[in-house]
Amino acid sequence: MSAGSILTVPIRRLTSGVLTEEQDLVAVEEPLQISIGSRNIAITMRTPGQDAELAAGFLFTEGIVKPGEIENISCTRNTAVVTLAHGVELDPTRIERNFYVSSSCGVCGKASIEAIESAGCATLPVDEPPVSEAVLLSLPAKLREAQRVFDRTGGIHACGLFSSSGELVLLREDVGRHNAVDKLIGRAYLDNLLPLSGKVLMVSGRTSFELVQKSVMGGIAVLASVGAPSSLAVKTALRFGMTLVGFLNKDRYNIYTAPSRVIGEAV
Amino acid sequence: MSAGSILTVPIRRLTSGVLTEEQDLVAVEEPLQISIGSRNIAITMRTPGQDAELAAGFLFTEGIVKPGEIENISCTRNTAVVTLAHGVELDPTRIERNFYVSSSCGVCGKASIEAIESAGCATLPVDEPPVSEAVLLSLPAKLREAQRVFDRTGGIHACGLFSSSGELVLLREDVGRHNAVDKLIGRAYLDNLLPLSGKVLMVSGRTSFELVQKSVMGGIAVLASVGAPSSLAVKTALRFGMTLVGFLNKDRYNIYTAPSRVIGEAV
Repeated sequence: MSAGSILTVPIRRLTSGVLTEEQDLVAVEEPLQISIGSRNIAITMRTPGQDAELAAGFLFTEGIVKPGEIENISCTRNTAVVTLAHGVELDPTRIERNFYVSSSCGVCGKASIEAIESAGCATLPVDEPPVSEAVLLSLPAKLREAQRVFDRTGGIHACGLFSSSGELVLLREDVGRHNAVDKLIGRAYLDNLLPLSGKVLMVSGRTSFELVQKSVMGGIAVLASVGAPSSLAVKTALRFGMTLVGFLNKDRYNIYTAPSRVIGEAV
Repeated sequence: MSAGSILTVPIRRLTSGVLTEEQDLVAVEEPLQISIGSRNIAITMRTPGQDAELAAGFLFTEGIVKPGEIENISCTRNTAVVTLAHGVELDPTRIERNFYVSSSCGVCGKASIEAIESAGCATLPVDEPPVSEAVLLSLPAKLREAQRVFDRTGGIHACGLFSSSGELVLLREDVGRHNAVDKLIGRAYLDNLLPLSGKVLMVSGRTSFELVQKSVMGGIAVLASVGAPSSLAVKTALRFGMTLVGFLNKDRYNIYTAPSRVIGEAV
């Protein structure tokens, strides 16, 4: 993360009875307006940086654009203006179906599993290379080690894309965990690397419907998190044949769906 | 929380080298569609329960309705249909200004501090009764104690409204922390208790712009959280004269803004 993703603010700190005036670091959160041409599509609160990736990843994971449909993304401080490739028309019903006025966290109008199905997502292939239990258990430490902002502000979510042998392929961080995933999938979109076959996505925090939905769109068959999944995250993973792992730590995990992709000594 | 907020799912669990097939509890996440009459306003992924509160709190904190403007809220499983009071007209520009197609977490189109100002929020009064340091330090334990779901699923956010003497007035829980705050403020809206003067709101997790914005709308002058605030949370609290406390635990806190509302031995 760049220096622009951290802000220094004065605080009054109490620690074990001692009160001090200090400078503290907080994670930067600012709005990004994503437009296609002159049409406003979304505003998201994000940590500045990789805004083109965020715009591409957001538009792709929300079903607004398909691979290859983006010609250019022009970013200023808090806007990303997307130009579609020649001949690509924005289908207004796609936006309305996915978005019509949306609220917050984990939703964007994609009210149900059916909405993902209608976006054309197929079930994830079962014949992906399996992940070994040892690799899986190594991921949380690797993700933490790779994070440069979290320990300084305590306010940043991270997601890391790993190969099935446990090598970190890509790391993204953001105040919003969905933004971190959008930035990561957006990078893959811009590099024509979708779908992300044979990869494991590891996220800090909990797993909501939204993270599963975005991962399905990205073709990621194994999604692991440090925290708990929600019921709809489990149901959605089940529907699309995704392997969903929760409470992953160095000596433990819960596998909620499709456990056959994880092989290990204990199995 | 009712039994409907927890779902039992089969999992494969690894703990210290031992693999077992078990039943696990996950927090229920389902979409709620909020409409005013026949007009869809928002879909939010929430933990079912207190849906009328959620609808009222959402519409109020997003600046769509003012106190007293709701006549009735009719809820089915995943919909809440709001009827406005006789003579109250929904101003479409209010929705468009606040929402136009919005993304996820913490945004709803309210792109900036100016949007809160335009919703008519005044600076929070400085002459509220101060909160003692001892009361503040007691809140995290009280919030945890009052939470009945968190320890069982690990996937639920909580917020508790406390009096300035540290008594729990109201507790709400949800998979989305913004929903928990909407439910709490929605309850106050329905009971004609707004603004929530002389109260402290304590939330689990981190503090984003959105939580500060909703608290300002609710007239809450002291917002405390277990985790870190974002930069825009701090800036917004500063603008509205809110006391923002982060990293609150039994023997420590950071006060980011308006520290004069907290008095204690160490001060």
